[in-house]
Amino acid sequence: MNLTTGYWIVPIGWVESSLKERAKAPRQGSEGAPDAWLLIRPEFAKGLDGIKPGQEIVILTLLHESQRDVLKVHPRGDENNPLTGVFATRSPDRPNPIGLHRTKILQIVDQCRLLVWGLEAIDGTPVIDIKPVLEACNDS
Amino acid sequence: MNLTTGYWIVPIGWVESSLKERAKAPRQGSEGAPDAWLLIRPEFAKGLDGIKPGQEIVILTLLHESQRDVLKVHPRGDENNPLTGVFATRSPDRPNPIGLHRTKILQIVDQCRLLVWGLEAIDGTPVIDIKPVLEACNDS
Repeated sequence: MNLTTGYWIVPIGWVESSLKERAKAPRQGSEGAPDAWLLIRPEFAKGLDGIKPGQEIVILTLLHESQRDVLKVHPRGDENNPLTGVFATRSPDRPNPIGLHRTKILQIVDQCRLLVWGLEAIDGTPVIDIKPVLEACNDS
Repeated sequence: MNLTTGYWIVPIGWVESSLKERAKAPRQGSEGAPDAWLLIRPEFAKGLDGIKPGQEIVILTLLHESQRDVLKVHPRGDENNPLTGVFATRSPDRPNPIGLHRTKILQIVDQCRLLVWGLEAIDGTPVIDIKPVLEACNDS
């Protein structure tokens, strides 16, 4: 790893979802996204110890179908919205296309399969981190 | 990029802060962290168009001094706390050590220097993404 060139990120698991295409995915989880499974790789399962159903979490994903050379977009894909810098939007197209998804754990099976509430990431999206929500409104 | 091996993440800039050592950094921005500058690389400056002082943002960083082979920690570094999976904690030591920092933009200078409120990341930490906060409590 090198400060001037970059860093290597490894998937800890993947999303399994009925959402199969980016074009059909809602833009935010609160806009009608389905519940989905996170399949965590067995070698990372120990990192889940202490996570419980009912808990609110932030999932970080790598939005693998994104364009990474885009710096300006029409917000929400609507050409009526003026071109805006990607860092002022939640566009999935951006230099480092990391998705942030605040959700809740509904069920845990076999220690490494997590059912989560309303997730807008499509099937096969790599999961790169899971973090607890510490306080409402303050830290996620 | 490859689903089974990993993804390359490129710094869009760096943190400039009076916090020089990880051991002295507060664990959360709300615990007395200083204001800090984000120095965005000129080639990414267009991506900031539309960001304004006063706006709340989420900064994603790569916590470059972290240990990436750690799956269990004593929360908050206190050995009285039982060993817990890193994904149930905000430990900086984790497989993909991405920091999430919710903060506010205080000032923008030269289009690519952003002064932000209370940031617990140390000087030199790579910045990998900036996202707007969409709604209080719901999406960050």
